[in-house]
Amino acid sequence: MSKKLSVVLVSGGMDSCVTAAMVAQESEMAFLHVNYGQRTEARELEAFHAIADHYHVANRQIFELNFLKLIGGSSLTDTNIPVARADLHNKEIPSSYVPFRNTHILSMAVSWAEVLRAGEIFIGAVEEDSSGYPDCRAAYFQAFNNLIEVGTKPDTKIKIRTPLIGMKKKEIVLKGMELRAPLDLTWSCYKEDSSACGVCDSCALRLKGFREAGVKDPIPYKESFF
Amino acid sequence: MSKKLSVVLVSGGMDSCVTAAMVAQESEMAFLHVNYGQRTEARELEAFHAIADHYHVANRQIFELNFLKLIGGSSLTDTNIPVARADLHNKEIPSSYVPFRNTHILSMAVSWAEVLRAGEIFIGAVEEDSSGYPDCRAAYFQAFNNLIEVGTKPDTKIKIRTPLIGMKKKEIVLKGMELRAPLDLTWSCYKEDSSACGVCDSCALRLKGFREAGVKDPIPYKESFF
Repeated sequence: MSKKLSVVLVSGGMDSCVTAAMVAQESEMAFLHVNYGQRTEARELEAFHAIADHYHVANRQIFELNFLKLIGGSSLTDTNIPVARADLHNKEIPSSYVPFRNTHILSMAVSWAEVLRAGEIFIGAVEEDSSGYPDCRAAYFQAFNNLIEVGTKPDTKIKIRTPLIGMKKKEIVLKGMELRAPLDLTWSCYKEDSSACGVCDSCALRLKGFREAGVKDPIPYKESFF
Repeated sequence: MSKKLSVVLVSGGMDSCVTAAMVAQESEMAFLHVNYGQRTEARELEAFHAIADHYHVANRQIFELNFLKLIGGSSLTDTNIPVARADLHNKEIPSSYVPFRNTHILSMAVSWAEVLRAGEIFIGAVEEDSSGYPDCRAAYFQAFNNLIEVGTKPDTKIKIRTPLIGMKKKEIVLKGMELRAPLDLTWSCYKEDSSACGVCDSCALRLKGFREAGVKDPIPYKESFF
């Protein structure tokens, strides 16, 4: 019997890379990347292709979502709003929050999965060690699965899967090492595209994970949050 | 006190025009139109601007959603799939169904509303006299409102409103007449852009509404389903 087909959302960051490493063990993969006008768009796309090459994934889609840049409201898409230095104790939603971003990305994945007849969509969202984005919580993905159930054809059975949702960043690094995920090919920084800035939210969370795991992060940094 | 601001999704068809006519009575309006690579894209956009001019709506956004055409799977976006002649007794989901389309459109409206700080988003979806699309049912919009609640910032309160959801096409025509909605400016046909085809699902449902209301449809048709 041929392996089932799953869609994997691959931003190019560490979390999506480890997610792909997990899915690779049990499923054929189709990789989806979304350009939404974020600052590091080109660097993320490069990481996406490198990870796809690593896993020999031929079925790749890159969708454009230009309007998020048009409406702004986030430091990731509006260059007039500076990318803030991370504050890992702040419980407020940071300025990098892109309005309803994951809904757009997941919806694209669902439309594509419906045409491909793929049954599962994987996204490397993390609730615990995260920036506190509302659309990265387990409750959000549950609501999205409910929406898919009522919003697609009756014979369409698509589920969003979030294997990392309850993991700490440290555990994600260790899982990546265990599965030999190519973490050297990934890119997480919100701001820079040659050496990672080391101090934005995304860098700080990543560095915290490597530090707690006792592993050296293989990508270059300009400075370090710690 | 200044009037509240609402986002209205305006495709350019009869239902969205009547919805706008209803919202105009109680709210400032911002109009959103989405090009998703549908056959009659240019004609719908013309109708959108004509309706916006009629209601003096300055705040207009036209978002592009190109990837739906890229993945295909619908007669509206894939010119290799013919637009079927309407069958109003068929209970199957027709070939014009665009995978998860309304989720993309509503998500765009939510992102925009979140930046605009608009509280309500209006869409002229109809459940009863419809083609049976899963994403035009009241249960779908309820699931979407739930998703907004968990997927946006805690202080964001946005609701999707569907004032036509339980109406028959006949009642929509009569409501339009009562509110002097500019139905002559609207475009509903899935296929043609000078004279409406009169026989696609959308034309057939529209013509049925006018016929049952005892009113002449002001737009030109090539032929009539009835």
